[in-house]
Amino acid sequence: MAKISDLLLERRTIRKYSGKPVDDVLLRDLLKGGCRTSTTGNMQVYSIIITRDGAKKRELAPFHFNQKMVTEAPVVLTFCADFNRFNKWCKERNAEPGYDNFLSFFTAAIDALLVAQTVCIAAEAKGLGICYLGTTTYMAHKIIETLKLPKGVVPVTTVTLGWPDEKPEQVDRLPLESIIHYEVYQDYNDMDINMYYSEKENREDSRQFVKENSKETLAQVFTDVRYKKDDSVHFSKILLQVLKDQGFMNQ
Amino acid sequence: MAKISDLLLERRTIRKYSGKPVDDVLLRDLLKGGCRTSTTGNMQVYSIIITRDGAKKRELAPFHFNQKMVTEAPVVLTFCADFNRFNKWCKERNAEPGYDNFLSFFTAAIDALLVAQTVCIAAEAKGLGICYLGTTTYMAHKIIETLKLPKGVVPVTTVTLGWPDEKPEQVDRLPLESIIHYEVYQDYNDMDINMYYSEKENREDSRQFVKENSKETLAQVFTDVRYKKDDSVHFSKILLQVLKDQGFMNQ
Repeated sequence: MAKISDLLLERRTIRKYSGKPVDDVLLRDLLKGGCRTSTTGNMQVYSIIITRDGAKKRELAPFHFNQKMVTEAPVVLTFCADFNRFNKWCKERNAEPGYDNFLSFFTAAIDALLVAQTVCIAAEAKGLGICYLGTTTYMAHKIIETLKLPKGVVPVTTVTLGWPDEKPEQVDRLPLESIIHYEVYQDYNDMDINMYYSEKENREDSRQFVKENSKETLAQVFTDVRYKKDDSVHFSKILLQVLKDQGFMNQ
Repeated sequence: MAKISDLLLERRTIRKYSGKPVDDVLLRDLLKGGCRTSTTGNMQVYSIIITRDGAKKRELAPFHFNQKMVTEAPVVLTFCADFNRFNKWCKERNAEPGYDNFLSFFTAAIDALLVAQTVCIAAEAKGLGICYLGTTTYMAHKIIETLKLPKGVVPVTTVTLGWPDEKPEQVDRLPLESIIHYEVYQDYNDMDINMYYSEKENREDSRQFVKENSKETLAQVFTDVRYKKDDSVHFSKILLQVLKDQGFMNQ
């Protein structure tokens, strides 16, 4: 068996899955491991929606911008911040929950995200491949409808899961030095930025990316093509409205 | 070496650490593994602040409500949502970043939280013990001051790290059945809630907890003592103000 440190260092996101099904016993074992993750006050304010049904995947797909992993992966997991269950328990036990505010949402989101990452590592340790879908926060309102999430529940991330049918090149990462700070934040000057981003910018795939998009710099591919201000503003408004609709903005 | 699945299932939060220092090479290896975690668009919009200095820990301690782990652990890690570095890169490369909005904050928070959990699992695999501090989101404004976090950076969670000097009982978890949903969310009726919470409520430590706090039910200990509405509302307002001050509420 691989050492955990090697597993973490050697991993890559998998977007292409073989037809081999993911056994339900295995899946439940991964999720059981996930549920041992630290959780605020041991409240476990999260839920995990398991999508295996083809029709349901096709329903979800457009809300993940039709990324093919959603319909092609044997399992799609939607991790949700969930105060609904906890609130119901409180109300049944003569206790008045006060968790309809932003802090509570963020607490539950933290819970859900930490569990998601544990499940992903557990899956990779078994040889499975995973891919996170950032689209969940853009289209939370539609995912809420599709998965019938009640008030108090907000999807925060989605993971597709299956046996790998590819072994892509590992993508680059910034040097560790650029990510960590000792004692206090060391802000970046122009030289730091040049140094930290030079490897990324000089990769062949980055240059290709800039050329294909007819841009001057790799940064422009991000700001003008991949993660545009207008989209971010648009989806910010929607996400804040979702938090309100799901009962998390009473403060 | 332990199997990863066993490691995840057998873990427990560690709040008491031995005097043995955590080697910087080991720490950097853990963080390097952490940085292989999935990140939105490979932007790596997070930073990790490493606190080892005793004076700095004492400065941070009150903002974590003087939980003793902060001063007693050899290492304190503050995981931050960070668009500052990415924005600087964009600006230096003739690209106009549009990441001063709520969606961008949440994207960066997801990045930071997934990395945090990978680092924790990597640490536990080496025999280290960890504890998450939920206080980070309550006192983000004070932590920002103490760690000199610039605009575009918000601390989202803190982890204390060290060699265990205790082996506490494993705490309870809700049955997996209560956390997972197949295809669509199955909302909980009174019977479900009774069934899912009965083990937790009937534990000796839970009963003791109810008695000590002079409450009728365990749920009341949460709503009236541990996670009160007034506190949640208060810290929600502060956290939203922090997002505004750090430049993430322009949508």
